Amino acid sequence: MVADVSPTEIDPAHPDGLDGLGGVHPYAGDPVFDLHAGGKMETVSTVALTGADELSLAYTPGVARVCEAIAEDPSMTQHYTWVPNTVAVVTDGTAVLGLGDIGPAAAMPVMEGKAVLFKQFGKVDAVPICLATTDVDEIIETVVRLAPSFGGINLEDISAPRCFEIEERLKERLDIPVFHDDQHGTAVVALAALVNALRLTGRTPETTRVVISGAGAAGVAIAKILLGAGITDIAVTDRRGIVSSDRSDLTPVKRELAKVTADRNGRRGTLADAFAGADVYLGVSGGTVPEEVVATMAGDAIIFAMANPNPEVHPDVAHRHARVVATGRSDFPNQINNVLAFPGIFRGAFDVRASAITEGMKLAAAEALADLVGDALAPDMVIPNPFDPRVGPAVSAAVAAAAIRDGVAGI
Amino acid sequence: MVADVSPTEIDPAHPDGLDGLGGVHPYAGDPVFDLHAGGKMETVSTVALTGADELSLAYTPGVARVCEAIAEDPSMTQHYTWVPNTVAVVTDGTAVLGLGDIGPAAAMPVMEGKAVLFKQFGKVDAVPICLATTDVDEIIETVVRLAPSFGGINLEDISAPRCFEIEERLKERLDIPVFHDDQHGTAVVALAALVNALRLTGRTPETTRVVISGAGAAGVAIAKILLGAGITDIAVTDRRGIVSSDRSDLTPVKRELAKVTADRNGRRGTLADAFAGADVYLGVSGGTVPEEVVATMAGDAIIFAMANPNPEVHPDVAHRHARVVATGRSDFPNQINNVLAFPGIFRGAFDVRASAITEGMKLAAAEALADLVGDALAPDMVIPNPFDPRVGPAVSAAVAAAAIRDGVAGI
Repeated sequence: MVADVSPTEIDPAHPDGLDGLGGVHPYAGDPVFDLHAGGKMETVSTVALTGADELSLAYTPGVARVCEAIAEDPSMTQHYTWVPNTVAVVTDGTAVLGLGDIGPAAAMPVMEGKAVLFKQFGKVDAVPICLATTDVDEIIETVVRLAPSFGGINLEDISAPRCFEIEERLKERLDIPVFHDDQHGTAVVALAALVNALRLTGRTPETTRVVISGAGAAGVAIAKILLGAGITDIAVTDRRGIVSSDRSDLTPVKRELAKVTADRNGRRGTLADAFAGADVYLGVSGGTVPEEVVATMAGDAIIFAMANPNPEVHPDVAHRHARVVATGRSDFPNQINNVLAFPGIFRGAFDVRASAITEGMKLAAAEALADLVGDALAPDMVIPNPFDPRVGPAVSAAVAAAAIRDGVAGI
Repeated sequence: MVADVSPTEIDPAHPDGLDGLGGVHPYAGDPVFDLHAGGKMETVSTVALTGADELSLAYTPGVARVCEAIAEDPSMTQHYTWVPNTVAVVTDGTAVLGLGDIGPAAAMPVMEGKAVLFKQFGKVDAVPICLATTDVDEIIETVVRLAPSFGGINLEDISAPRCFEIEERLKERLDIPVFHDDQHGTAVVALAALVNALRLTGRTPETTRVVISGAGAAGVAIAKILLGAGITDIAVTDRRGIVSSDRSDLTPVKRELAKVTADRNGRRGTLADAFAGADVYLGVSGGTVPEEVVATMAGDAIIFAMANPNPEVHPDVAHRHARVVATGRSDFPNQINNVLAFPGIFRGAFDVRASAITEGMKLAAAEALADLVGDALAPDMVIPNPFDPRVGPAVSAAVAAAAIRDGVAGI
């Protein structure tokens, strides 16, 4: 058994073995790809193993006593493993960014990115899990089987309406936080910005009329969180117009949505019908809203055109008809960015060992985000910057307190 | 929404939120438990996110281009994600160390320990996955669904005979390395030590007579690797004696094992029958072999009593009847420790993007380990120390070369 390939031939300059194989990377020189070379994350040990003594504590034979302690009292998991600080970022690759169903392998860079953001902004350890199945039952069973390994489940980029059923059934099955960020992360940040926009324009939730375009994951979740925040006059539109019960083409999710939105105020018809006289437009649909439609909104209108990279209403157009304008882009003011929410939400949930993420915890996160703007409140400043170091601590503290109030804290 | 619990009340001194909740840890002051407080590992980012520009490269919108590149050419996963350097350490908690079926939660400290060893000794990123199912089909389906997230699968502490079927079927289903360490890690290191013990005692594989006690994961794998290394006179024993085809109580795995071991040399009967005149005893069974049985072995005998923490033959007893003695313990010479094998085996497989771990790769690992002892070869030095820095590079280079020879390398 003589090796005919020497170690230096295999791996000349890259001791981790990742970068030396192909010579140069296929897209070398492109800043995005250069940053992604070798991936964006790694696992590291938090204990030093410098000799046999440490090895016998961290591994056999010492580790056996820790296993026995957990077998005797499962709550010891909270003290002596990494589980309570670890979230699985789970996708099936069916609705990745705006790219659609690109599959689990191609979804990985987004999930790694999410994991990096979890750590940087929430001190949460995160593991990207890209599943080779798109079957709802299989996804649910798989996550249930994985659950002993994680303190929480962040669902990501799973297409609607499957994402709703998956999240709901997992919440029933598991006693750890389950959170579909495309729904609730977006909803929390949008609500935070909207709370401040209403303050700026002197509106109250009860009298504000809202149009949401897009009845997918984000649109449904935004509608629900607005209802929780006391905003009741909502019309949600899809490609066929306002989602209302007189339509015969609604999915079960949209039927439920219609009952608590357009049916309450009798709104019917097209997107243009919904816009006429509306105070707030929240776009999570993509596509473009014609300027003549935008022009029919009420005075001092509020427009959050959150599609990426192309907002439903370009900010230059929006500013001609609205007092407060927000987008999903980092190159305009008022970026509605999920990273303001999900790291702090899980941090807060983990800090009090919450068994779930309740509506109260989401509302508390939104309120905390809105309050952080404080005296800086202005049409171009309705939401904090993602790199504001106060964001994570403020959100996590508010979420932890809400978990205690809602009776889901484990401390 | 006023928080009634302040952040300082929730988390006074521990910014990661892990240690401040319960006041003191339940086993505070115990060195093993103190080391395990908060777990033994974390995830970290390998890219800096210091502002919006980096964020737009590592996450949206930049990351979308990396996703598209992988969707177009799946091999780009190898360049631009952490997947090719990442192994899942998968267990169902049914055979954890010598503790037996303690379940997935209690297995986690061992899996974290394994992950730490993977990184320290092989520069392999490892994620512990403890599954809430013991059903063979469910375990297989779950791992297949997880596979896009990992470059390899290390099965761990799954009870026999289920472990054999799980590994075999996963190898058929997946095109990444699948390796049950309790079988093959132990087998590789035992073979390495045995190769040197045979050199010391002037034996050749062809004329060496071996007894293996224990027909579980390790015993079966050791028998197979010895056959691959040219040792043909083998008797494996279980609680009822030598595993031979005249017995009516054999499982399918043991029936196959009998055909290639005891049936070839006609050995039948008890453990004592197997010992009489044997050159080598390899214990992976637990229990105790009486000294009068040990005394019946051939001259210059070789005894590897690998049960932990209590060797089948205590080294003091073994030395009265054998020239070379090894155990699984770190406090005696010649420790048969899997950590000598699995990190380098996966490192070598990953370095050449191997699609499997072949018998040739395992034999190459054993040979490389044996050769490292070199001129230091002595009865108390038949296997390197786990902290010998040459071990990982030597094993990985030999394994990578064997992968190329065996046609499973992806480069």
